Amino acid sequence: MTPEEFRAAGHELVDWIADYRTQIPRLPVQARVGPGEVAGKLPGRAPEEAEPFRRVLADLEDIVVPGVTQIQHPRYFGWFPSNATLSSALGDLATSGLGALGITWQSAPALTEVEEVMVEWLRELTALPESWKGVIQDTASSACLVALLAAREHATDYSEARGGLQGESAPLTVYTTEHAHSSIAKAVALAGYGRDNLRFAGVDPVTYAMRPEALAAMLEADVAAGRRPAAVVVNVGTTGTTAVDPLAEIVPLARRYGMWVHVDAAMAGSALLLPEMRWLVDGVEGADSLSWNPHKWLGTVLDCSLLYVADPGHLIRVMSTNPSYLRSAVDGEVTQYKDWGIPLGRRFRALKLWFHLRLDGVEAIRARLRRDLDNARWLAAQVSSAPGWRVLAPVNLQTVVLRHEPPGAASGTGAVLDADALNAHTLSWVDSVNASGAALVTPSVLDGIWSVRVSIGAEPTGREDVEALWSLLREAAERAP
Amino acid sequence: MTPEEFRAAGHELVDWIADYRTQIPRLPVQARVGPGEVAGKLPGRAPEEAEPFRRVLADLEDIVVPGVTQIQHPRYFGWFPSNATLSSALGDLATSGLGALGITWQSAPALTEVEEVMVEWLRELTALPESWKGVIQDTASSACLVALLAAREHATDYSEARGGLQGESAPLTVYTTEHAHSSIAKAVALAGYGRDNLRFAGVDPVTYAMRPEALAAMLEADVAAGRRPAAVVVNVGTTGTTAVDPLAEIVPLARRYGMWVHVDAAMAGSALLLPEMRWLVDGVEGADSLSWNPHKWLGTVLDCSLLYVADPGHLIRVMSTNPSYLRSAVDGEVTQYKDWGIPLGRRFRALKLWFHLRLDGVEAIRARLRRDLDNARWLAAQVSSAPGWRVLAPVNLQTVVLRHEPPGAASGTGAVLDADALNAHTLSWVDSVNASGAALVTPSVLDGIWSVRVSIGAEPTGREDVEALWSLLREAAERAP
Repeated sequence: MTPEEFRAAGHELVDWIADYRTQIPRLPVQARVGPGEVAGKLPGRAPEEAEPFRRVLADLEDIVVPGVTQIQHPRYFGWFPSNATLSSALGDLATSGLGALGITWQSAPALTEVEEVMVEWLRELTALPESWKGVIQDTASSACLVALLAAREHATDYSEARGGLQGESAPLTVYTTEHAHSSIAKAVALAGYGRDNLRFAGVDPVTYAMRPEALAAMLEADVAAGRRPAAVVVNVGTTGTTAVDPLAEIVPLARRYGMWVHVDAAMAGSALLLPEMRWLVDGVEGADSLSWNPHKWLGTVLDCSLLYVADPGHLIRVMSTNPSYLRSAVDGEVTQYKDWGIPLGRRFRALKLWFHLRLDGVEAIRARLRRDLDNARWLAAQVSSAPGWRVLAPVNLQTVVLRHEPPGAASGTGAVLDADALNAHTLSWVDSVNASGAALVTPSVLDGIWSVRVSIGAEPTGREDVEALWSLLREAAERAP
Repeated sequence: MTPEEFRAAGHELVDWIADYRTQIPRLPVQARVGPGEVAGKLPGRAPEEAEPFRRVLADLEDIVVPGVTQIQHPRYFGWFPSNATLSSALGDLATSGLGALGITWQSAPALTEVEEVMVEWLRELTALPESWKGVIQDTASSACLVALLAAREHATDYSEARGGLQGESAPLTVYTTEHAHSSIAKAVALAGYGRDNLRFAGVDPVTYAMRPEALAAMLEADVAAGRRPAAVVVNVGTTGTTAVDPLAEIVPLARRYGMWVHVDAAMAGSALLLPEMRWLVDGVEGADSLSWNPHKWLGTVLDCSLLYVADPGHLIRVMSTNPSYLRSAVDGEVTQYKDWGIPLGRRFRALKLWFHLRLDGVEAIRARLRRDLDNARWLAAQVSSAPGWRVLAPVNLQTVVLRHEPPGAASGTGAVLDADALNAHTLSWVDSVNASGAALVTPSVLDGIWSVRVSIGAEPTGREDVEALWSLLREAAERAP
């Protein structure tokens, strides 16, 4: 495609996107296609000849749009916010247009240095320790894996440079809670610790936050049994209930055992832009690493996750490679981000952060985050005061976990039959809400029983959308068997 | 940013990109900024108030463009082609515009199914085994790590579900050659094998390809010494010289020892679109996994790497997680790509492949790849027949490794002083070429002596650009001390 063909098609696509975003409120939130339906509409082979742009655009409209759940819909309250702000989309388009290649500082100095400045802007905005350095990763899953690899090498004095974990005698263990994101268990498995060595410390039954006493007891018993505590993953805003583990109380315990402290604030990190929310990470100056995702609530289009570390020298030693064809005269003076993560080749992701923060401005972003927190508190208040409804966990952030418990169903009694009836009731009314297309919420298991997560924070979601949701939930639940 | 603001700014940015791409030939290829120069031009803090789009665009032009090496320049012959075709850039813009979220099939059925169809289109185009299934990863570094994790779990009967590598007694070993990409050693280290357990089989001194006899001898000795061969990484087109390990001869050896065979065809994979180049992967039907990067020579904008596996069930067992909030009624019927790699959240990367293949057409892509192969052969012929010049490795693909060896310098004698003088000469003339801005080539160490890699394959590079490069190289080398 020539630049002039791009110019013509690009204008069409920009208009299409502007129109699409305007029309999203009229689309069903949840995709209504069945398995194989999208694939069945595509030809089995790539075209030999170039196709006209209008045909591709028509397929985008007719096949792709109905085939995705509308995450940018004002009534999307599903999994978690994954805002794709149009300001950041422009930054990402600039990235593609530039076509820069991030393999070393030399290959694209601006790619590295804009990234350094962006992670510093966001460090300052979130009041993380001044000495910390950051890097953009694709997702918190990768960032957590990198952190647990760093922890592994910290605990084994760089076993990777010798015989690897295979040379280790006493098993290294990793600690978190059962409410940790699934990527933690995955990272433990992939990093070679083994799932048997992932230990869940007990949580408070009301807040679902890690109990430091439970962690302390577990550590003591594990060390007595010959295990070697290597890392603790502290959850700041769990996926299920936005529970907040008490970092300030966990850090001293971790220090006593020489453990790495990784803070997983994937969703909650955005809230750190608000001074009143910084209690979430009280004690963070004692942690070793923290990751959070601007591609969630903040709204920098996927994929954009931040990993901060207190000691970049250690991370670099764990991740570095230095083949001759990548050496340059400035190696000692510059940051080589290839040594801060798994991929060598890196996209110029910092541009989307740069465009996002500059074109939207921090003040407006903070106002939006506060709007969402207010909306969550408002919804929680409605639910709490409505007969037959319960809020099941503290509303620390923008997520409300709730359940409709009609007369005759279990009300926390734990009776098995009642729990089954309650599960059937919950899944029935949630399905009817989601199938209606009018809103999307996510069913989730809490304490063994299905509950409903309402995750507020889509960019266009206003109070009127949350009010409409609350009406929908009541209608659906009160009508359901 | 509202849709209407996006419409206005988007049109400006599209025009800017079209103009920029048109003007690239007039820019110096290599960025001329020094360490800290770009960062020094950016403010220390994010702006509180939104800035006008024109100011951001002006900074893109004035700060970022001079701060990146122009990978899309017709006279870019550096590291490797990393083409960012404008057709694929449109696809990626559509991705940002849609703002879909790939966490499960359910969250965006089209994201999963278009990806399934695209990896199948490319499987068919590259004639990989019909039963293989693929997935898009960010880079070959990640794909190789995933492959070596799969290999580790294959060798240990899923040790990750128990005590991990820590529970293993005899060390697992991984085989490749010293010409393998640095990401292989990194993956071995990160997967916990330990660098001591990465074994380099000897290569042919002329082709730099693995010698199967050397691998066989090493395997025999290692097993006798109590090691457990787990995987072999077969290099199809090494970064240094595009050497091609003899896959068909390696597979039976690997089978004998129950090893995983991973094929790293990161750069060379694009060539498999050409039937006449399929000899590169003769024997591939006996491999377990293969990765290659459409974001290199093919030109699907970063990041877009393909990983194919013969046994998806095994990969899924190694990588899977299944938290309640991601469960759905269709789990058994659909592909859940979260279980095919490290990240949970996935960008809709398949759209850029879809746009790229449809808007450019496969016929034109094949013609471009053939053009580059022809250009490389032409350059190699010029170099070979010019006095004082040598081609140092077989030109299997689009890369020519060469050296100017003036009278008085070492001519393969290996005398230390002569090698030093030759190194100084080479680095001097290469630096002068690169500093001129007229072209970019990459110095690289081969057999302990600096050589020069000319990697042909930027999208706009025609024969006239290769001719101009050859003039530049001769002028620079013949003028250099």
